[in-house]
Amino acid sequence: MMHQISSSPFNKAVEKLASLPGIGNKTALRLVLQLLNRDQQEVEEFGNAFINLSQQIQYCDSCYNISDSSTCSLCSSPTRTNDIICVVENILDVIAIEKTNQFSGKFHVLSGIISPMEGIGPNDIRIHELIERVNKTHPKEIIMALSTTMEGDATNFYIYKKLAHLNIIVTTIARGIGIGDEIEYTDELTLGRSLLNRIPFKNTLAL
Amino acid sequence: MMHQISSSPFNKAVEKLASLPGIGNKTALRLVLQLLNRDQQEVEEFGNAFINLSQQIQYCDSCYNISDSSTCSLCSSPTRTNDIICVVENILDVIAIEKTNQFSGKFHVLSGIISPMEGIGPNDIRIHELIERVNKTHPKEIIMALSTTMEGDATNFYIYKKLAHLNIIVTTIARGIGIGDEIEYTDELTLGRSLLNRIPFKNTLAL
Repeated sequence: MMHQISSSPFNKAVEKLASLPGIGNKTALRLVLQLLNRDQQEVEEFGNAFINLSQQIQYCDSCYNISDSSTCSLCSSPTRTNDIICVVENILDVIAIEKTNQFSGKFHVLSGIISPMEGIGPNDIRIHELIERVNKTHPKEIIMALSTTMEGDATNFYIYKKLAHLNIIVTTIARGIGIGDEIEYTDELTLGRSLLNRIPFKNTLAL
Repeated sequence: MMHQISSSPFNKAVEKLASLPGIGNKTALRLVLQLLNRDQQEVEEFGNAFINLSQQIQYCDSCYNISDSSTCSLCSSPTRTNDIICVVENILDVIAIEKTNQFSGKFHVLSGIISPMEGIGPNDIRIHELIERVNKTHPKEIIMALSTTMEGDATNFYIYKKLAHLNIIVTTIARGIGIGDEIEYTDELTLGRSLLNRIPFKNTLAL
């Protein structure tokens, strides 16, 4: 312990905040002191938000997005097609993709990616649920939108294999140079991939 | 709102974390998602820590440090003298000073400093309690250890005036060049102050 305040409710609150990723002991200390500057009721509401989170959080039965009901707003939207399912690692990726306004299909939110180092196998991340859903709803395309890491590639490959016997197009989002990036500062893997995956120039004219 | 997840317990938790200083909306989102990866019970404990904080936090009756009882461990320590009271802005400063192992008196924790801009006047920060305590316990010295800001200076001066009629030495901690700092990179105010407050060289030999 880096400080010497002998108050167990105080230290417990510091400890809990410091358990969050990116929040060190000193920051947690500061944050708890900041909370103590507020009204008692506000601090109670702060705590209650997390009690409610633990007790009331719901996930969509279909895509596993966080939801207020058993079907999330994306899955129940009449303007979104069931023909395309975009597979993502977590809810932050749903938010990121939604912001692009380039996707009007449904999502499937895995709870992470296959990572043997962390003991996360294919059975831990709702791949089974994806296969079941595909067998039931018969989408035409599955877009894999996972990280470009070893783990992401492994997860891509595993799901691809699982879907291979079905009549479905499996695609992955394009890897290449970011818009606005300069070629000389792009790492060689990305640059190499963007050369390999080059597309006819006329196809870009419509964008 | 920067995201579109329609779950009120989720959004409430994000909002509460984002209300903490230095934690933006996106970070709060990440942190809540990280919490959701934990067991339900752990998230409940997280929330309970803050409920307990709001309900059970206690302050020392004498110095206003956070405490487990009505007298904090520093005030009840038999090895600490009552002759010196060090006045600080908040509990972080108590921790910082305690780490130096250079102070064995008592503290008085103001709840901030005088700041007309933020509507904080002398009556809001336990100065009255300090004066009362001084009149009761008759310390020999008051060390002012406040920020070197306009507000800190104003608070120093206000307290100094309030104590002027008593037979007490009021000191402030030394301002000057930090240990290890280079003169050429020191700002002119600090350097000027360290010249004004120069001390006989032989006094430093004992340190």
